[in-house]
Amino acid sequence: MQLAKHIQKFTGLDDNVVAAICNKFTQITARKKEILLEEGQRCCHYYYVEKGCLRLYFTDDKGVEQTIQFALESWWMTDLNAFNKNSNSSYSIQSLETSTIMGIENKTLQSLMEKHPALEKYFRRIYERAYSAALFRMKVLRLPKDISYNMFEKQYPEFVQRIPQKILASFLGFTPEYLSELRRKKAKHK
Amino acid sequence: MQLAKHIQKFTGLDDNVVAAICNKFTQITARKKEILLEEGQRCCHYYYVEKGCLRLYFTDDKGVEQTIQFALESWWMTDLNAFNKNSNSSYSIQSLETSTIMGIENKTLQSLMEKHPALEKYFRRIYERAYSAALFRMKVLRLPKDISYNMFEKQYPEFVQRIPQKILASFLGFTPEYLSELRRKKAKHK
Repeated sequence: MQLAKHIQKFTGLDDNVVAAICNKFTQITARKKEILLEEGQRCCHYYYVEKGCLRLYFTDDKGVEQTIQFALESWWMTDLNAFNKNSNSSYSIQSLETSTIMGIENKTLQSLMEKHPALEKYFRRIYERAYSAALFRMKVLRLPKDISYNMFEKQYPEFVQRIPQKILASFLGFTPEYLSELRRKKAKHK
Repeated sequence: MQLAKHIQKFTGLDDNVVAAICNKFTQITARKKEILLEEGQRCCHYYYVEKGCLRLYFTDDKGVEQTIQFALESWWMTDLNAFNKNSNSSYSIQSLETSTIMGIENKTLQSLMEKHPALEKYFRRIYERAYSAALFRMKVLRLPKDISYNMFEKQYPEFVQRIPQKILASFLGFTPEYLSELRRKKAKHK
């Protein structure tokens, strides 16, 4: 969903106010596989996905990329801690598809929230949704692999279809082979 | 931190307004090990911890309790999804110490937020903190066990001291024996 419509839905603000808010964002077109933020770099932007898909990941001590979050249309993504402290990021952010993204810097976001307190409600809802999704994920990842895949597929069918198999497997803590085998078995029983 | 002071800190609301808000909460004294919410029961309350410690957990298919979150002083806890939908909970909540808790029902909380929009800012900050902590946890739990323990101890020294060893081990995905051995080794190197 486009950012203006999304803000309007949660805040009920007037068209012209929402337009002025969106005007403070920078529109970015990211290529498939493009890196928007690199681990260790200063984290300057919060990203809202208008179209496409982003992933948040870090590289572990064995050099393996560990994906811990995705953002499809209408979801936000950044290294929240680094963004708020204007410090270096503990994660990288990559675009998994050709994506249209709205980016904003922390200082601009803070002044927007001061000027338009209705945005507090918007971000309260955004963080509430993000936190609820994080709790769900923490539960699902504690369950046996086949159950966790089924629960994840039921909750987020679009993710499962759009995310490349290797990255989805990393997110679920599976090997790509295990995920492939699981999908083959499920297709057989349909 | 007491609820009134905590709300005031983030919102700057007047004393009498904050007092009227806090008046809508019910104060609960929970005994050590008391269950405040049982998995499968209707989730009616959001809890704010004034003193003590709560944990959120579920029982997996092997009958093992899986702890996914703690709340010490000034943290909030509920099954957010069930609370918002007024549905049955996917988790249990237990008090790990003698705790003083402020509880509120969803309907009352929603009407407070409508009456006092400054509370949107308060909860935006609360969810932002909770979501940031969830991201940190998801990263830490993907690291080798000794590193994840050290990072967790550095970030939340009080948790590590106050949480019973068996429950802390479950949260970190360790066996209690492994955690005990790790602590013994760390004490030796101090």
